[in-house]
Amino acid sequence: MERTMMGLVKERREPGAVFKEVPVPQIGPDEVLVRVKASSICGTDVHIYNWDAWAAKTVVTPNVFGHEFAGIVETIGTQVNNVNIGEHVSAEGHMVCGHCKPCRTGNSHVCVNTRSFGITAPGCFATYAVVKASNVIHNSPDMPFELGCLQDALGNAVQTVLSGDIVGKSVAVIGSGLIGLMSIAVAKACGAGKIIAADINPYRLDMAHKMGADILINSSTTQLSRAIREHTDGEGAEVVLEMSGHPDAIREGFEAAANAARVSLLGIPTEDISLDLGRIIFKGIRVEGITGRRMYQTWYQMKGLLDNGLIHLDGLVTHTFRLDQYEEAFELMQKGLCGKIVFLHEVSKTQTLESHHYDHSFIH
Amino acid sequence: MERTMMGLVKERREPGAVFKEVPVPQIGPDEVLVRVKASSICGTDVHIYNWDAWAAKTVVTPNVFGHEFAGIVETIGTQVNNVNIGEHVSAEGHMVCGHCKPCRTGNSHVCVNTRSFGITAPGCFATYAVVKASNVIHNSPDMPFELGCLQDALGNAVQTVLSGDIVGKSVAVIGSGLIGLMSIAVAKACGAGKIIAADINPYRLDMAHKMGADILINSSTTQLSRAIREHTDGEGAEVVLEMSGHPDAIREGFEAAANAARVSLLGIPTEDISLDLGRIIFKGIRVEGITGRRMYQTWYQMKGLLDNGLIHLDGLVTHTFRLDQYEEAFELMQKGLCGKIVFLHEVSKTQTLESHHYDHSFIH
Amino acid sequence: MERTMMGLVKERREPGAVFKEVPVPQIGPDEVLVRVKASSICGTDVHIYNWDAWAAKTVVTPNVFGHEFAGIVETIGTQVNNVNIGEHVSAEGHMVCGHCKPCRTGNSHVCVNTRSFGITAPGCFATYAVVKASNVIHNSPDMPFELGCLQDALGNAVQTVLSGDIVGKSVAVIGSGLIGLMSIAVAKACGAGKIIAADINPYRLDMAHKMGADILINSSTTQLSRAIREHTDGEGAEVVLEMSGHPDAIREGFEAAANAARVSLLGIPTEDISLDLGRIIFKGIRVEGITGRRMYQTWYQMKGLLDNGLIHLDGLVTHTFRLDQYEEAFELMQKGLCGKIVFLHEVSKTQTLESHHYDHSFIH
Amino acid sequence: MERTMMGLVKERREPGAVFKEVPVPQIGPDEVLVRVKASSICGTDVHIYNWDAWAAKTVVTPNVFGHEFAGIVETIGTQVNNVNIGEHVSAEGHMVCGHCKPCRTGNSHVCVNTRSFGITAPGCFATYAVVKASNVIHNSPDMPFELGCLQDALGNAVQTVLSGDIVGKSVAVIGSGLIGLMSIAVAKACGAGKIIAADINPYRLDMAHKMGADILINSSTTQLSRAIREHTDGEGAEVVLEMSGHPDAIREGFEAAANAARVSLLGIPTEDISLDLGRIIFKGIRVEGITGRRMYQTWYQMKGLLDNGLIHLDGLVTHTFRLDQYEEAFELMQKGLCGKIVFLHEVSKTQTLESHHYDHSFIH
Repeated sequence: MERTMMGLVKERREPGAVFKEVPVPQIGPDEVLVRVKASSICGTDVHIYNWDAWAAKTVVTPNVFGHEFAGIVETIGTQVNNVNIGEHVSAEGHMVCGHCKPCRTGNSHVCVNTRSFGITAPGCFATYAVVKASNVIHNSPDMPFELGCLQDALGNAVQTVLSGDIVGKSVAVIGSGLIGLMSIAVAKACGAGKIIAADINPYRLDMAHKMGADILINSSTTQLSRAIREHTDGEGAEVVLEMSGHPDAIREGFEAAANAARVSLLGIPTEDISLDLGRIIFKGIRVEGITGRRMYQTWYQMKGLLDNGLIHLDGLVTHTFRLDQYEEAFELMQKGLCGKIVFLHEVSKTQTLESHHYDHSFIH
Repeated sequence: MERTMMGLVKERREPGAVFKEVPVPQIGPDEVLVRVKASSICGTDVHIYNWDAWAAKTVVTPNVFGHEFAGIVETIGTQVNNVNIGEHVSAEGHMVCGHCKPCRTGNSHVCVNTRSFGITAPGCFATYAVVKASNVIHNSPDMPFELGCLQDALGNAVQTVLSGDIVGKSVAVIGSGLIGLMSIAVAKACGAGKIIAADINPYRLDMAHKMGADILINSSTTQLSRAIREHTDGEGAEVVLEMSGHPDAIREGFEAAANAARVSLLGIPTEDISLDLGRIIFKGIRVEGITGRRMYQTWYQMKGLLDNGLIHLDGLVTHTFRLDQYEEAFELMQKGLCGKIVFLHEVSKTQTLESHHYDHSFIH
Repeated sequence: MERTMMGLVKERREPGAVFKEVPVPQIGPDEVLVRVKASSICGTDVHIYNWDAWAAKTVVTPNVFGHEFAGIVETIGTQVNNVNIGEHVSAEGHMVCGHCKPCRTGNSHVCVNTRSFGITAPGCFATYAVVKASNVIHNSPDMPFELGCLQDALGNAVQTVLSGDIVGKSVAVIGSGLIGLMSIAVAKACGAGKIIAADINPYRLDMAHKMGADILINSSTTQLSRAIREHTDGEGAEVVLEMSGHPDAIREGFEAAANAARVSLLGIPTEDISLDLGRIIFKGIRVEGITGRRMYQTWYQMKGLLDNGLIHLDGLVTHTFRLDQYEEAFELMQKGLCGKIVFLHEVSKTQTLESHHYDHSFIH
Repeated sequence: MERTMMGLVKERREPGAVFKEVPVPQIGPDEVLVRVKASSICGTDVHIYNWDAWAAKTVVTPNVFGHEFAGIVETIGTQVNNVNIGEHVSAEGHMVCGHCKPCRTGNSHVCVNTRSFGITAPGCFATYAVVKASNVIHNSPDMPFELGCLQDALGNAVQTVLSGDIVGKSVAVIGSGLIGLMSIAVAKACGAGKIIAADINPYRLDMAHKMGADILINSSTTQLSRAIREHTDGEGAEVVLEMSGHPDAIREGFEAAANAARVSLLGIPTEDISLDLGRIIFKGIRVEGITGRRMYQTWYQMKGLLDNGLIHLDGLVTHTFRLDQYEEAFELMQKGLCGKIVFLHEVSKTQTLESHHYDHSFIH
């Protein structure tokens, strides 16, 4: 008889989701089954939940979604030799072909045949998840699950920060969403000079300060490029990390960039935007488009930073929920008055889950 | 009594120029006076001649313009110890401060205090030109002056091609103006894989073929991105060199770029353009804004290529004129039915200058 | 009943080899069986044949040896989806684990669990060879088999040349063995400046000249470092490619290196050597240890160079033999009066194989 | 009448030095005169003081020696426009020509015409020092002079650490002399993973611990390479920073390096050493020879790290002296029971200088 489990399913190609009973997935010979202990909500999950144009173009249904998790290996496939039952793990979400030219030349993060865990393949908002053994990331048993699940997003931040030189340089982080916040911590840990954080949300600017930003700019009330120049002796920022995807912010980011600056783009605009490319050319700027994580250099860099205590993720998780509280969780996420929201998968319904139990003292 | 010479002067802030008698310039202690033997017309000179928005914003008047030249050193300043009288020379056109952060960190090509020879300082369309000794480039006495003057433009091409890996990679050169044509030759000499050249001008596509392009695309009749994909097994070009500055061409260039491609931008759009940045992000593209030449790595790379016979510039010069024939020269330049146009400074008016004496047999 | 084939076997842990009947190897689900059409002798095979200290420490017996080949796929394993029967192929010789840190971070060429085709696993000096599907390199059906088999060695040359910048730089290639000769051609094709080749063997210096070297130095009669300085205006070579493994040559190579030079080491010394490290430090030299080929960037670079006609391998093969003529072949190889020696696997014994049929006109 | 000052002079080509009255140096048009407030003793100064083979070959006499300092600008030359009277400054010690190929291609730290402040030109162990304006480094007025003078040595450490990737990587720092100690702090500040420090001097290992080393190895009692492997899960160190110059330590460093590691060499052996280059080749190691500081990227990186509080130098200075106490200072330096020794130039002889006034509580 087929085993079943509870999972959060994107069932219909419209807004919303359903928490329902689904079969426990079968594993192939090179896959492992993981009991999920904690998962977290990514901005991408909000796109899926709300069913916007990107989701309609990209997402498979019906599908258990969610791709950020930590858990314990329960079963391994017959050909798996790098993962053992009982190990604490997370996983890289990009499942790549291994045969295309990007895969064969160190660029599998842009594999042309990528399948995405929780987007175009079953994900982790459920009791169990199946992942390819080669995608498994081993966690220390000491790492709390609610922090382990943040590594996929942290990996985006690490790749963004390290897509060029950072030591001693002035850095503008535009957009203090979760990956922006993580980028601040990563930049600080990697020797960045002055770090300037921008957002329009005071809640997030407070978090940016806590993560280590030296200067906070509310770009709803201040012209971003002018403010950045003022804080960099008129030179502009030597590194711009664009995390917002907002057209005005992107334009201001290029305007604020110093000559010979590096501008790394992670935030995805929802539409075409108008740009003065002459600024890029005359200033001799390098632009880096960032997607996913370098497989697997980024994971090793991240592990080195975490294991040696150079990055602290604790302050980032502000709220926890049970999976069946998903409506409340997504509603909060969209309001933006939160840091990272984590689902704890093994809290029973009869337990009173104090969902807002993290310290907010840094918010004033 | 002040010595005078003839020079092509941008006198008034309006279209046109005047060929007139002007003083021979004085040199400072760290400068040299060069008797100009040949100079060539850059696209920038056309902007100055036509007096467009960029020129109005940038150019100093009155000023002898022109910045591409070769000549012989006639006098040197009292502190000059790296240049001797009688040497054959050209010069880097960017006069940089040496004190700003870009200058002190290997990025003097984007010095924040740059003065530009022939644009914001006196140039070379005259009998004599003054240049800073540190900007002097030594030419072999064997190098014909009409080829020596092409090096400033060739340097742009060299920097563009070498702003990332090139060996064995598919390369799309978009825009077959002179720097585009030179880029084809440079890419070939540096081990590029298949080279695809695009333009809307059949004359220039013919020249592109002669410079070594493997595939020619007339983008007025073919969709550029689709054609490039067809010629790269559906992958797209691994390197895109954008030389046109045209909005559609730029968009098609990003569309045609392979995952993990490098796109180097040299052509300067005259207005803001609308772009889908998501393409840059999801494909993990690196964009390089190119201005000037790396000082002086680019010049050494170029010298190595030229001295070892890996690049042949001869076919690029299609027409020569005397300086006093500047109206005819600029008219021809704007029609685009030419390669590089060179002024020969020491042909007397009584000599019959066969201005179209280069081989056009490759044009059919 | 088991199929058999003829193979050149290292049977005993002593000098020599045996040409004998052996079973056709079985393929696993991720492997392919290739009918070998041509193979070539690497310096490594000479170490195995002669059974020196390195071989005694490294090589598995009994084993069909040889690792450079080209052939046609005859059978594919059940899980193979990137190779088809009938395709013309060669293969990367390093079979790597995919799980160790080097493998996961773009350095699988130094995988800590490498098994080597023809050294620690069965090789290609036989009618058939088995290779992992992921190691297969596709050849154009137009590529002659006797050239296809040279790619493993050519890949060493490509990685060595491209382990740093090369365009316009002076290059000293020390040791004109086969990989040294190939490096000359690769450096030329990739835009190197003046190429200086050194060896003690006039036969090989003649070949170096044919491959494109600008300067030839017989280091048995001339002090190498002084000669290199003389040919580089006293600066020294900006790139030194050490292909000899000889202690004196290595010392002279470091001596001849310019300030800020790159020295890439491929030739393996048979014993510890005495070095003045202060030269490396005070001159700010970068040293690159080269092993194998970047998997698979090097193969793509090589393919781009070959497909676009930038490298010609023809002149490198000076002699061909049948496999059963192996004693004659190894004897010739050790004399050094040859370029590359190729085994043609499908020439019947009754055919008169003109083993010395390549043009030697460049040898005087 | 000529102004005089007191200076520590290397007068004769034999061990020792003399503290005596000498003329205040004259400045040229592009130089500045600095009143020295603090200077520090480099290992190089000990070579000069002891007059070893390197010193005999390199040093000019008679000469005020010393090259690490901080002070206040007193006079500027007529052509100086980037330095003002009264500014707090230190200086890069390499005075470079600006014309040679290394200088023109971003490698002026290995200029072929370098003159070295305090070695081949007058230095800073005196009341006044003259430096080229282009060599001046501006210090914040807040920076204590006794820390400002450490920057020349810190720059060596910064260049060594950043001569390759460092984030998340295991780092072995071999030799805990002053630059080794600084490298530990720099590596930590730049996101290094586990940092392993080695030395034979327990005093220095204690300091290494204080600077942030995670693992301490006394290489007089433990086999270095084995210990490093044990602390890196058997992989070896991904980055080896060789600071000792000792033959055994260098050999152990290469032995301890992981596959694909980077080994940066700063410590200068006093004689040729015997090495197994096969280890470098088979492991695919990159070696970087380090000399001086990148001009001026290293200074900007250092400034970013210091200004943002990522490196603390205080613990490094263990002893201070007046210049006339030089014999005591050099004696202590040679015993090795000290961190950095600083000369305070403006403490009068009648003041009781408590020369050991820094906290030693970390020594147990």
